[in-house]
Amino acid sequence: MLTSKTVNEFINELASSSPAPGGGSVASLAGALGAALTSMVCNLTIGKKKYVVVQAEMESIVTQSEKLRSSLTALIDEDTNAFNAVMNSFAMPKETEIQKNERTAAIQRETKNATLIPLRVMQLCEQTLPLIRLVAEKGNVNSISDAGVAALMVHAACMSAKLNVQINLASIHDAEFVRDAGTQIKGIGDRVERESQNILRHVNASLNTHS
Amino acid sequence: MLTSKTVNEFINELASSSPAPGGGSVASLAGALGAALTSMVCNLTIGKKKYVVVQAEMESIVTQSEKLRSSLTALIDEDTNAFNAVMNSFAMPKETEIQKNERTAAIQRETKNATLIPLRVMQLCEQTLPLIRLVAEKGNVNSISDAGVAALMVHAACMSAKLNVQINLASIHDAEFVRDAGTQIKGIGDRVERESQNILRHVNASLNTHS
Repeated sequence: MLTSKTVNEFINELASSSPAPGGGSVASLAGALGAALTSMVCNLTIGKKKYVVVQAEMESIVTQSEKLRSSLTALIDEDTNAFNAVMNSFAMPKETEIQKNERTAAIQRETKNATLIPLRVMQLCEQTLPLIRLVAEKGNVNSISDAGVAALMVHAACMSAKLNVQINLASIHDAEFVRDAGTQIKGIGDRVERESQNILRHVNASLNTHS
Repeated sequence: MLTSKTVNEFINELASSSPAPGGGSVASLAGALGAALTSMVCNLTIGKKKYVVVQAEMESIVTQSEKLRSSLTALIDEDTNAFNAVMNSFAMPKETEIQKNERTAAIQRETKNATLIPLRVMQLCEQTLPLIRLVAEKGNVNSISDAGVAALMVHAACMSAKLNVQINLASIHDAEFVRDAGTQIKGIGDRVERESQNILRHVNASLNTHS
């Protein structure tokens, strides 16, 4: 499993001439890092006298951000596994007509599956942003830059996942699937772009006020 | 060392109530992931017949991106070490006038040092972008989404590092240091914003052409 490798090993494998892990697993990892930073800001707020009025809210947020972190972390490996399944279907025999048809069907099936994973990353990133907004607005102000980094990571994760959906859609024949996924990624992409910008404006304003 | 921990352990430590590692180390990690993906696209281009005309260029790019990857990876730990040094200076005794002065001087010195690390991350991110542009334009088109993810990671890394410089500058008394660093991060931030958008426009255009 990729997540059982050291950070160094992961980065080394990424840089190598093997196509997996690639941008898809990096998208999931960036999302997991964003969710983890959201949890961190909560954990650095909970138990502090100055923030006692938001303690219950932070406890509720950290429960949610930890679930999102866990799901996004699992998708690091799922993305690479799905990519390898696509590669394996390309390697299927294609000598007889039956083999050709089976191979094409497998490629289509596995490419659809490999598309659903970054789509899920995008959905989870969108769900993380309202939590990041809350920790940026109400969490420990000493960690405001960490809330900003969380927004930047989740934004990059979502847009990275979008590129991975798009490159897969280019080779899927099922027009309805392509249309549906296209509509979804456009909507999520636009909303995540807008909301992450809103959070970053708040973070920058707060940094300027306190400097 | 953080980079010797597994990806899972790193994300767990990040989410914990310990302030380190935090957004600074995540910024360096995102930069390292972007540089690693740049190397990957080179490695998936080198040796392919279709790309023989750019082989020498890709070999030159991968040498540079691997150096940047190595520097950015080292900064993951350096950022956390520098942050811990700031925390240690805050913990210094402050009973006598001499102790107070020594403590203040140490806080100022360590905070400046902790500021130079994300500033270095920003500089390295800026140096990575021209390489990403080249692999996006001339590298293996099957990896165009990975080039896009590299641009997104390096952009997020640079803007994350900028937030970390800003939050540190707020507590540095040396006006000249603050002014100089402020000018530098504004310049790098603006250029990285513009150049990463340019790359992403090219990647999106290429994805639309091939779909």
